[in-house]
Amino acid sequence: MDMSKDKNVTSITNRDEDFARWYTDVVTKAALIEYSSIRGCMIYRPYGYAIWEQMQKEIDARFKDTGVENVYFPMFIPESALQKEKDHIEGFAPEVLWVTKGGDEELAEPMCVRPTSEILFCEFFAKDIQSHRDLPRLYNQWCSVVRWEKTTRPFLRNTEFLWQEGHTAHTTAEEAEERTLQMLNIYASFCEDFLAMPVLKGKKTDKEKFAGADSTYCIESLMHDGKALQSGTSHYLGQGFAKAFGIQFSDKENKLQHVHQTSWGITTRLIGGMIMTHGDDNGLVLPPRVAPMQIVIVPVAMQKEGVLEAANALKSRLVGDYRVKVDESDRSPGWKFAEYEMKGVPLRIEIGPKDIEANQAVLVRRDNREKVIISLDNLEAEVAKAMEELHQSLFQNALNNRENRTQTATSVEELKEKLDTKPGFIKAMWCGDVACEDKIKEQATATSRLIPFEQEDLGEKCFCCGNKAEKMVVWGRAY
Amino acid sequence: MDMSKDKNVTSITNRDEDFARWYTDVVTKAALIEYSSIRGCMIYRPYGYAIWEQMQKEIDARFKDTGVENVYFPMFIPESALQKEKDHIEGFAPEVLWVTKGGDEELAEPMCVRPTSEILFCEFFAKDIQSHRDLPRLYNQWCSVVRWEKTTRPFLRNTEFLWQEGHTAHTTAEEAEERTLQMLNIYASFCEDFLAMPVLKGKKTDKEKFAGADSTYCIESLMHDGKALQSGTSHYLGQGFAKAFGIQFSDKENKLQHVHQTSWGITTRLIGGMIMTHGDDNGLVLPPRVAPMQIVIVPVAMQKEGVLEAANALKSRLVGDYRVKVDESDRSPGWKFAEYEMKGVPLRIEIGPKDIEANQAVLVRRDNREKVIISLDNLEAEVAKAMEELHQSLFQNALNNRENRTQTATSVEELKEKLDTKPGFIKAMWCGDVACEDKIKEQATATSRLIPFEQEDLGEKCFCCGNKAEKMVVWGRAY
Repeated sequence: MDMSKDKNVTSITNRDEDFARWYTDVVTKAALIEYSSIRGCMIYRPYGYAIWEQMQKEIDARFKDTGVENVYFPMFIPESALQKEKDHIEGFAPEVLWVTKGGDEELAEPMCVRPTSEILFCEFFAKDIQSHRDLPRLYNQWCSVVRWEKTTRPFLRNTEFLWQEGHTAHTTAEEAEERTLQMLNIYASFCEDFLAMPVLKGKKTDKEKFAGADSTYCIESLMHDGKALQSGTSHYLGQGFAKAFGIQFSDKENKLQHVHQTSWGITTRLIGGMIMTHGDDNGLVLPPRVAPMQIVIVPVAMQKEGVLEAANALKSRLVGDYRVKVDESDRSPGWKFAEYEMKGVPLRIEIGPKDIEANQAVLVRRDNREKVIISLDNLEAEVAKAMEELHQSLFQNALNNRENRTQTATSVEELKEKLDTKPGFIKAMWCGDVACEDKIKEQATATSRLIPFEQEDLGEKCFCCGNKAEKMVVWGRAY
Repeated sequence: MDMSKDKNVTSITNRDEDFARWYTDVVTKAALIEYSSIRGCMIYRPYGYAIWEQMQKEIDARFKDTGVENVYFPMFIPESALQKEKDHIEGFAPEVLWVTKGGDEELAEPMCVRPTSEILFCEFFAKDIQSHRDLPRLYNQWCSVVRWEKTTRPFLRNTEFLWQEGHTAHTTAEEAEERTLQMLNIYASFCEDFLAMPVLKGKKTDKEKFAGADSTYCIESLMHDGKALQSGTSHYLGQGFAKAFGIQFSDKENKLQHVHQTSWGITTRLIGGMIMTHGDDNGLVLPPRVAPMQIVIVPVAMQKEGVLEAANALKSRLVGDYRVKVDESDRSPGWKFAEYEMKGVPLRIEIGPKDIEANQAVLVRRDNREKVIISLDNLEAEVAKAMEELHQSLFQNALNNRENRTQTATSVEELKEKLDTKPGFIKAMWCGDVACEDKIKEQATATSRLIPFEQEDLGEKCFCCGNKAEKMVVWGRAY
C-alpha cells in the first residue's frame, strides 16, 4: 500500500474556525479543481466536471421541456458592436479582455472575449426575425464567458467560468415577462429539488440590476457561514436592445414592432454554493440527485472468500437505478471511508464476511454518518429511503440555518451590528432610493440582495432615511 | 398562409454544377448556421447545434466506455508556457490570437486563446502525476478552440470551432501507442456506423504530422466531389512534451521516468463532411442515427376529421424508439415535403383520409424519395427496416463513390491529370522523402493524405523520384 497517498484525506481546516480556508481545502482535497497558471482561471478535474455534467443534463432537459432550443454563438464580440447598447457596455467595459493581435499582425478591429452574449444574439435576431410567425425565439447556449476579475475564488468568482445563457424574443411584453419568471421558477425548483438548496425569489433593485435590463429577477441562497450567494438571474430586457439593434417583426396587421426580450443564466458558482451549503468538517456533502457517484460499496476483509463477489452482487442490484462504484483497490477500509466522505458520496455500503453470513450490510449516510444495519432482503427499499431522507435532511438543515440567520432591522446601525455578530439575511423596509443603498453599503458593507416576492409589513418607514417605505428588502453580505 | 416563407425551399444550386455554392446553399437553407460579423466565426442555429449534440452524446459515451473522464481547462495560455515545446509553438504561432488588454490596462503577459491544449494539460500533468499508481490518466474535454485562418468555410475551416480533445499519459510507450490506435478505431467506427461515412485509416507522413508529435494517425474520407477530408486525428506524442514540461512518475522500482502521451480530436468539420458525403440536389441528407429529427409525420388534408388524431397516433407508436415530429402547421403538404427534404430528415410518413380508411400510410425514404405504401399493422417493423436500409444505402453509395474515384499513378504528371479529370484518391508508391512531397504539392497541388494501414504493392519505385519506394501512400486534394 502506498502510504504517501493517505495524507490526502487526513485533515482539512475546521469549518467553523476558518470558513474560507475550509472551502479551499474541500475544493482541492475532494479533487474538484486545480489552480492554473492563468490569473483566476482554474482546471476542472474529473470529479468537479462530472458534477457540472449532472447539473447540465438535468436543467437542460427542464429547459427543453419548455420549448427552449440550444445554439452556439462565437466567443468574440467586435468592439464596434459592443458600443451599441450604452448601459450594457458601461457595465461590462472595465472587465472585458481584448484580443488585439492575430499571429504577428495587429487586428483591424479589436474583439473582446464575450463577458455575456446579448450583443451577438441581438445582431442575429435582427436578421433572423421578420414576422410574428418567427416568434417566440427561445434560445440557450452552454459556453464559457470571461470577466477580468481582480479577486477570484474557485467556482465563486473566476476570470473564465462555465454557464448557460438563455436569450428569448417575444411579440409582447406580457409574454416576455412571463418567460422571465418561468425561467426564474425553473432555477428555483432546480436548486431546491435537485441541489437541496433553499432559495428566496424576488427582484433586484435598480442599482443591482443587469446592465441594460428593464428588470432583473434573482434567486438568493444563504451559505453555512451566513453570507449570501446570488444563485441565478433572469432579466426582462424590455425593448432597449431591440431598439439599439433594430430587431423588428411585422405583426398580424402587418405593422413593424420591436420585439420584447429576456435573458437568464446560471453558472458553475452553483457548485460553490452547494459546497458552502452542505459541506462539513469531513469534506464535501453532495445531495443525492446531483452526485456523480451516489453509492460507494466498500468490501471489508476483501481478501476473504466471497467478499468481492458479494460487493459486486450488491452493485448489480443497484446499478440500474443509481450511479454505483465498488472500490476494489488495495487501500484499507478506513482510508476508503475517509476518501469517499471527503468526496461527499451520499451513501456508503460496507460488506464483510460476518455481514454475508447474517445476510446484511452496513449502510452509512454521508450527512449523519450513522451506521445502520440493513437486511439484504430490503436493500433496494432501504437505499431508496436513505436517499430520499438524505435529500430532505440536507434541505431542511439549510433552511433551518437560513431561518436561524434571518433577522430584521430598523436602523442601519442595527443591521450592521446584527451582520457583524450573526451574519445572515436582514429584512428591513426601504424607501426605494438608491442613496439609502449607497449609505448602507458604505456604513455596513451590506447590499440589497433582493425585493422578495413574499413581502412582509415591517413598518411604514425606510430603516435608513425614515421616509415612507415602499418595499421590504432582504439585505446581506454576499460572495 | 405566409407565402414569403415558401421561397426558402424553392431552389438550391445544382450539386454537380457548382459544389461549393451547393454546399453554402445547404448549410444556410437547411438552417444549420448563420454567418456572424466576426471573420471566420459562425452561429450554430438550433438544427445545426442539435446535430452536434447527437454526435457528442454518442461519441462521449464511447469514450467513457474505455475509461476516459471529462475535464475542463482554461481557454487561455500564457505566452511563456507556449514557448516550452519548440516544434509545437512553431506549428501554431502564425495562427494564434493574442489577448493583450484587460479593461483599459495592458496585461503583464499576453495570453493566447487556445488553438489546442497540450500545453495546459502538460503543465497540469506535471503537478498531477507522481507515481505509476496515478497512471494512466485518460482525460477529454469538449470546448471550442481558435485558429486565425485566412480562408474560412462553414464547419470545414473556422476561426473558432467546436471539438473534443483527448489527452492521456501512460507508463509505457506500448500502452500509449495502443491508446492512440484505440481512439483512432473509435473515430473510424463512429464515422462508419453512426455517420455512414466510410474512412481510410492510416498514418500521416512526417511532413503532415501534428506539431510536436512522434507520429500522427488519421482517418480520411472522400467527399462527393472527390476532395479528401481529414476527419479525425490521433497523435502519439512520445516523451517530447513530458521532457519539456517535466512530467515524471516513480515506477515500481522507485525510479523516475517520463510519461508517454497521446492526444486525439474530432471537430464540427465532421458535420461538413457528412453534408458533402450524403447531400443531394434537394438539400441535406442525414444518416438516421445522427439525425436530430428522424421521422416527420405530415398529415394530408389535415382539416378532415380524424387526420390529426391518426398522425398523432402514429407518433405515439414511434416516439419511444425514434425522434419524431408531427408537423401540424398550416403550410401545405407540398411545402412540408420540400422543407423536411431540405433538412435531410431520414423518413417521412404521410397520412390522409384515404390512408386511414385503408389502414395504411405512405413511407418515404429521404435518399431515394420513393413512396411506399405500408400497412399500419406493420408500422414499427417497416420503419425499422427503412431506417436500417437507409443507413446501409448511404454508406454503400459513399463507398462506391470512393472506389470509383480511387486510382493509381506511376508519375506526378499522371497523378495531376487524373486529379484534374476525375478528382479522388490516388494510390502511388513513395520513397519516404519530403522533397518528393514538396514537388508533388508544387506540381500537382496534391498532398499525401495518409499511409494506409492496408498496404498494396504497386511497384518498387517512388512514382516521383524513381528511387526505391518505401510505402504506398494515398494522395489527394483536400478541404
